[in-house]
Amino acid sequence: MSDLDRVLATVDADLDAAIARLFDFLRIPSISTDRAYAPECRRAGQWLVDDLAGLGLTTQLNDTPGHPIVTGRSDAGASKRVLFYGHYDVQPVDPLNLWDNPPFEPKIVEGPNGAKRIVARGSSDDKGQVMTFVEACRAYLKVTGKLPVDVTIMVEGEEESGSGNLPPFLVANKQSLAADIALVCDTSMWNATTPAITVSLRGLMHDEIVVTCANRDLHSGYYGGAAANPLHVLSKIIASVHGEDGHITIPGFYDGVVEPPDEVKAQWAKLDLTPENFLGPIGLTGPIGETGRSLVEMTTSRPTFEVNGMWGGYIGEGAKTVIPSIATAKISCRLVAGQDPAHVRDAVRAFIRAQLPADCSVEFLSGEGSPAVAVSHDNPNLAKAASALAEEWGKSPVTVGAGGSIPIVGHFKKTLGQDTLLVGFALDDDRIHSPNEKYDLTSFHKGIRSWVRILAALAD
Amino acid sequence: MSDLDRVLATVDADLDAAIARLFDFLRIPSISTDRAYAPECRRAGQWLVDDLAGLGLTTQLNDTPGHPIVTGRSDAGASKRVLFYGHYDVQPVDPLNLWDNPPFEPKIVEGPNGAKRIVARGSSDDKGQVMTFVEACRAYLKVTGKLPVDVTIMVEGEEESGSGNLPPFLVANKQSLAADIALVCDTSMWNATTPAITVSLRGLMHDEIVVTCANRDLHSGYYGGAAANPLHVLSKIIASVHGEDGHITIPGFYDGVVEPPDEVKAQWAKLDLTPENFLGPIGLTGPIGETGRSLVEMTTSRPTFEVNGMWGGYIGEGAKTVIPSIATAKISCRLVAGQDPAHVRDAVRAFIRAQLPADCSVEFLSGEGSPAVAVSHDNPNLAKAASALAEEWGKSPVTVGAGGSIPIVGHFKKTLGQDTLLVGFALDDDRIHSPNEKYDLTSFHKGIRSWVRILAALAD
Repeated sequence: MSDLDRVLATVDADLDAAIARLFDFLRIPSISTDRAYAPECRRAGQWLVDDLAGLGLTTQLNDTPGHPIVTGRSDAGASKRVLFYGHYDVQPVDPLNLWDNPPFEPKIVEGPNGAKRIVARGSSDDKGQVMTFVEACRAYLKVTGKLPVDVTIMVEGEEESGSGNLPPFLVANKQSLAADIALVCDTSMWNATTPAITVSLRGLMHDEIVVTCANRDLHSGYYGGAAANPLHVLSKIIASVHGEDGHITIPGFYDGVVEPPDEVKAQWAKLDLTPENFLGPIGLTGPIGETGRSLVEMTTSRPTFEVNGMWGGYIGEGAKTVIPSIATAKISCRLVAGQDPAHVRDAVRAFIRAQLPADCSVEFLSGEGSPAVAVSHDNPNLAKAASALAEEWGKSPVTVGAGGSIPIVGHFKKTLGQDTLLVGFALDDDRIHSPNEKYDLTSFHKGIRSWVRILAALAD
Repeated sequence: MSDLDRVLATVDADLDAAIARLFDFLRIPSISTDRAYAPECRRAGQWLVDDLAGLGLTTQLNDTPGHPIVTGRSDAGASKRVLFYGHYDVQPVDPLNLWDNPPFEPKIVEGPNGAKRIVARGSSDDKGQVMTFVEACRAYLKVTGKLPVDVTIMVEGEEESGSGNLPPFLVANKQSLAADIALVCDTSMWNATTPAITVSLRGLMHDEIVVTCANRDLHSGYYGGAAANPLHVLSKIIASVHGEDGHITIPGFYDGVVEPPDEVKAQWAKLDLTPENFLGPIGLTGPIGETGRSLVEMTTSRPTFEVNGMWGGYIGEGAKTVIPSIATAKISCRLVAGQDPAHVRDAVRAFIRAQLPADCSVEFLSGEGSPAVAVSHDNPNLAKAASALAEEWGKSPVTVGAGGSIPIVGHFKKTLGQDTLLVGFALDDDRIHSPNEKYDLTSFHKGIRSWVRILAALAD
């Protein structure tokens, strides 16, 4: 039996203990966007530090102005080193009443398809995925006493709130974070039986728009018919963002957008992504994107404008006949290769200002962003990882673009000069950011086994 | 000295005690729209019952399926009887942080114009106004031992939440509520020195619109660009309600609207209502209503469509890149003479359904309404009240329409066959339904004196 086979057998034998460890991690409500949960974020970081220290790694809980960053490294003098990245923070859990089970009390349940799944906030995004790599290292160390490549593990606590403190941390620790390649486990499989390596990621620009009309809330009987209503104003602006053809009408919004080469589009056309299998499970039948674009384009190579939250006026129980003074929208734009976040932010703001009627003012409260990134196709480690995944899953992985943003990949390239392999075992129906988030037991189990194979392959 | 003069002198001498009583009433947070405050509503009702009993009236706290209704009556065998109506419930107080002082800790402060004002939730709408009438009765009883006309006082606790239990109460107590005329104190003066008698009131139809797209909240990275966003859908619908000329585009919305006679419009044209004096104090410079309509028309004789509250998606701290499943708007329409609330509701709902894109559904949660009402111009009591007000204020009152809704006036006519005199002492800058609601001390003091004179005049 080869070392590799013995390690894989150990993964299988120790699966229950690995699940128990993941459950401990999931029980910590490390919501990074809400300051009230700051102590829980630290507790999650400390939990991981303790676990990595137990593997014999040199660990540290690195303080930042926000939530701490976990680091752990092996120094066995291997010829290669990988930098693994993940995040221990999770999304808020509202609306809580839509969860079948409390979000921080993980449970294994059987899904509608008969497959077992781990249900909890963070099970898929990203604690479950982080632990696939940690468990792969644990099994290797248990069986052989060393890892095939040296690893630096870096797990942050602010991915869901913008990763604001990670770029300066990279700059300050450039030397100690040096590696041959970065590995990120925060993406999805193509489907439940086909692995994927993600080669491009959309960027993100998010902003908060506050429209004010009158200097106070008004009685709609006295003033109704005469006084401007900021909810009407904001609705009108939002309604004008998309044309009937789904195209975004903001002048300058598409500046610089790179059109993928025809051969890439041809490859995408062969992928089995249909309204039925992609939108059906979420209760929709047809896409609302730009006319003439495929679903793959809409969700990976075309930018978007989305209202993520909006509110104004009376939103409590019962009726209140008020004309509000203020209306607010949280918006975000997914960006693609060629778009500059600051340029998009300025274009969006100019578009809104230009449409603002008399007597209304607007304030913008955020405007932060990160560009899209594309991973180099000729990195030899990509082929090695692809072979390793093919062996585990019995199928070649597809190379895809992802619609989501993982800004850290851009920073790895810019600050550390590293390419990144994005390999993840999430599924599109994992309900990340939603109630009843889950991670298939198969994702977790075969995810660990995949990393074992990838670590071995990268050592060659 | 006449009885009338002695009563007026007593009002002046006892003003401080009257203010102290009003403060006790204002300290009770009787918010009717929020079930959590139900015990406080009952407490406010009981406070008033006790106060009226102290005047020697026969009182009762009448239970309803909602908040109780206060009644008190004198039976001195006068040749005439009036039915006085007001409400002891108040609006919610959010946003609380915009109050300079806690809303249920009344205070007398000096306004920017040097006039003293009582600041508290309910000071103007409607506890302060209710107590002008109660204090007028108290002074009369103290000086003369009886009232010039018999009174039935009926004060409800659900005016701010739709008065749902009042119409059945009127039906059930038709006999005991019989009177020659109803008096309502829930309206405004024309300005700080000119009294007003309101002869028409806009009606109201309110509804709650819930638009659903996907069957759960979605990650905007995975699905953004393909999946429908209900905030976009709802914004588009709301944006389409008003044309560029301010006209409401909903088919059938204006069905039956009665255009006021030219002579009435001519009278309105003479009123000193300008964008500067009407909209200036609330920070606006121009009206947004229908092109070619005057401010008086926009706010009293033309119907409106207003979004009172709207929400969807993530509205907490920080960013959350979600495509929400659900978006909600609370809307209300002010109605004018000739409009049927049910017809308007159906027109609004049909308009929304017709615009709903594929994959989206809509639910409507309310749809209640009451029609506009107009008070008969030839009621002789109108002229008597006008003379009484002219004596107190040194100026004839103007007869106006009001933009707000007091559905009870329609029920008085329909169920009890009574006309209603709407006389109130609120001012347009009272910030009712808003933070820092106030009632001028002059409104309170001269309001009491006005009712003393009106009671005397009605006896003739």
